[in-house]
Amino acid sequence: MKKAIFYHAGCPVCVSAEQDILNLIPRDQVTVVHLGSEKLKVQEAEAAGVQSVPALVLANGNVLHINFGAAIEELK
Amino acid sequence: MKKAIFYHAGCPVCVSAEQDILNLIPRDQVTVVHLGSEKLKVQEAEAAGVQSVPALVLANGNVLHINFGAAIEELK
Repeated sequence: MKKAIFYHAGCPVCVSAEQDILNLIPRDQVTVVHLGSEKLKVQEAEAAGVQSVPALVLANGNVLHINFGAAIEELK
Repeated sequence: MKKAIFYHAGCPVCVSAEQDILNLIPRDQVTVVHLGSEKLKVQEAEAAGVQSVPALVLANGNVLHINFGAAIEELK
């Protein structure tokens, strides 16, 4: 099964949401990507429809923007 | 264990997020509240920190605002 991807940028809002999301979703069903340290993935996230972080891109392609830490533009 | 509460208002953004969230979280760990039809719960949601719907209030008290359907003010 395709995994969900949780994109974040290490901000306090992101870290808090990450902990909550990882408590909700079985750990083997989600990949965590830190866009602050993996700059090359910003484009990938944007192509998936991510407009801000933290965001969860689901296996079905839907994007859940969870609270607001930073706009994707700020991470480029 | 205290359950999470998913607040929504029946809007398309809410319904889409609801389906995604219910796919992620075991069904018995979340209560779904439709603020459009349960107006009395708007105040309860606001007291919990909900600023817009759809939103998921977790058992630990954290609020995850997921995408944006409507501001809580619009539901009063």
